[in-house]
Amino acid sequence: MYLECLTCEKCGREISPEIPVTGCPNCGYPLTVNYDHKRIEADLDKEKLSERGWNLFRYRELLPLPPQGEPVTLGEGGTSIVESTSLFSNQGIKSYFKLEYSNPTGSFKDRGVAMTVSKAKEWGVERVADDSSGNAGASLAGYSAKAGIDCTIYVPEKASGEKIEQIMSYGARLKTVPGPRENTARKIRKDTKGGSTHYASHNLSPYFSEGMKTVAYEISEQFDWKPPGHVVLPVGGGALLVGIYRGFQDLAQLNWIEEIPRLHGVQSEACNPVLRAFRGSRKDTRPVEVRPTVAEGIHIADPERGVEILEAIRKTGGKALEVSEDEIKEWHRKLSRREGIFAEPTSAAPLAGLKKLKDEGIIKQGERVLVPITGFGLKDLLKEEGS
Amino acid sequence: MYLECLTCEKCGREISPEIPVTGCPNCGYPLTVNYDHKRIEADLDKEKLSERGWNLFRYRELLPLPPQGEPVTLGEGGTSIVESTSLFSNQGIKSYFKLEYSNPTGSFKDRGVAMTVSKAKEWGVERVADDSSGNAGASLAGYSAKAGIDCTIYVPEKASGEKIEQIMSYGARLKTVPGPRENTARKIRKDTKGGSTHYASHNLSPYFSEGMKTVAYEISEQFDWKPPGHVVLPVGGGALLVGIYRGFQDLAQLNWIEEIPRLHGVQSEACNPVLRAFRGSRKDTRPVEVRPTVAEGIHIADPERGVEILEAIRKTGGKALEVSEDEIKEWHRKLSRREGIFAEPTSAAPLAGLKKLKDEGIIKQGERVLVPITGFGLKDLLKEEGS
Repeated sequence: MYLECLTCEKCGREISPEIPVTGCPNCGYPLTVNYDHKRIEADLDKEKLSERGWNLFRYRELLPLPPQGEPVTLGEGGTSIVESTSLFSNQGIKSYFKLEYSNPTGSFKDRGVAMTVSKAKEWGVERVADDSSGNAGASLAGYSAKAGIDCTIYVPEKASGEKIEQIMSYGARLKTVPGPRENTARKIRKDTKGGSTHYASHNLSPYFSEGMKTVAYEISEQFDWKPPGHVVLPVGGGALLVGIYRGFQDLAQLNWIEEIPRLHGVQSEACNPVLRAFRGSRKDTRPVEVRPTVAEGIHIADPERGVEILEAIRKTGGKALEVSEDEIKEWHRKLSRREGIFAEPTSAAPLAGLKKLKDEGIIKQGERVLVPITGFGLKDLLKEEGS
Repeated sequence: MYLECLTCEKCGREISPEIPVTGCPNCGYPLTVNYDHKRIEADLDKEKLSERGWNLFRYRELLPLPPQGEPVTLGEGGTSIVESTSLFSNQGIKSYFKLEYSNPTGSFKDRGVAMTVSKAKEWGVERVADDSSGNAGASLAGYSAKAGIDCTIYVPEKASGEKIEQIMSYGARLKTVPGPRENTARKIRKDTKGGSTHYASHNLSPYFSEGMKTVAYEISEQFDWKPPGHVVLPVGGGALLVGIYRGFQDLAQLNWIEEIPRLHGVQSEACNPVLRAFRGSRKDTRPVEVRPTVAEGIHIADPERGVEILEAIRKTGGKALEVSEDEIKEWHRKLSRREGIFAEPTSAAPLAGLKKLKDEGIIKQGERVLVPITGFGLKDLLKEEGS
């Protein structure tokens, strides 16, 4: 095993990877996954990667999986990168889109869920649950179907639309919870505590964010181990941003890349806990009052991984930003009409952020920037006004 | 240039690839694309493929593109193959799904459209049009947006739903035509004839079906040049089936594969011109009366490529089949609930066909079968009855 143990950075507890966990069993804090880096260095040869399939398991020594054994897979990872031809090129910036929406259930979440469900299967778990009316719920439903694991998705009462159809199509059970989003999170914790249903939380599971590291590995390899200087991301629960950060750290430790890109986190003005903590020079986020936003994927008032998000942004010299609803809609439109990329509105937020970073001189002429396109357009239709 | 010229198998006309064409300018028949196979053999080294990106242009010598020059790309191709874990394995058949829906606009059509739009750009075409209320329309709209080419999609009056939203999102113009589907085809031919708008027909363009060859190349490479013995496909206009056949022929000619898989074409009972011609031992299809079907992607009463479809099935020792609406719905449900693959209903038709082929003893125990999953589930929601 390359994976050694899990540790809690808050209370110091050490946990075996053979036991089903979500947060720290002692204090609830997000857990860190630790590897035997010497063994990885000895076994993993960069020059031989091209002999492996172009998918998540290309980098399996760096993932929380036993060296043998069959992971649960729907063919996730190995997504394309497309160079922007019209958005920022006339300003001398080379921007690239990584098409995370072409993962098997239509979003980047599949990388994380492939890990959590593979672990669940390894542990012999028979039932999983998550609270999500969005991409994570659809993804967990899909991977659970493949693994033959019973799946329940907790959603707020008023949840509707395409993602719910997708969740049901996989045969998962829906449990609707009255009241605001927070009630759903409370209810699932209560229902799964001490029971036989594993809470496969995409926001909290240590294995979920480990799957996200593969975005950093792929970006680096796709740019011949010289990744762009900036990555601009939407930030909700933070698993993507934190995962990408850890992925780049792994590669720096292996000396496969020289520099870690600056990671910039973009939120909507309607829901901006990370921005507020960043501006206030705080170490952790605090819950914020939220307004509705078209960027539903980042509508999280109180992210579990606040400390890690802020650390990833600060340590890489990145920035937290907020963008308006109108800016998100404008860039969503530009992305489909000028680049031919039909994404969910959440994926357009970082483009609005990129524009600001350029205007502020943080991203300079001649620099390269990567933006992951997190979810497919049909997941969350933003109907054309007047159409 | 590896591409030499186009020829018409019906009237013998030879056409330069430098001139915009759809069907034969003389007789309207589908054109064949001819290559300099000696040059391809000299330049293309199978052992060096792994040095190239895992996308459509990995096999560029075999595609109708100039050796230099920038193709129009949205990151298509390089799709994953997933092994079925529950559908036919207990009967000793190894079945595999190629996830064509993870292409950039959510369907296999992107491989063909990447070719037609790349050619359109090379020719300096400023306007393109196609008749499709489905995946091909959405794909052409997306690639045209990327290429900066004006795009009009002709659709029947009553067309609606997610695919139309997607077409509009890319900024393409919609032209609705009263009456049945055939009226739309007649209207676009009339409007584009002799004018400056290129009719980028997914059913007729020689370049479109050339893009489909890459499915065969990828399957072969993914199975280490020993492709499964059977490929079971949905058949509508036939570009996929004909393209895959030509792709395998290319590889057989290069001696990269020993045998061409048997290609089986599946239609709905509600629209079965290929089945009828196959059963009647006819060389070409005849138009049929159609009923509505949930498999909208193969709802084509009079395929342009009838002769080629029948030839591909017969020459590979394949079979034409029809399946019922209930069978399509049943396998659509099984595919999502047991394999975690959320596809449009059309993609489930070949699974119902595979079941029949197994029951008839055409696909035997120990054999391997591949099914391409052509379109994403959100493209065409088949709502759960009673939900």
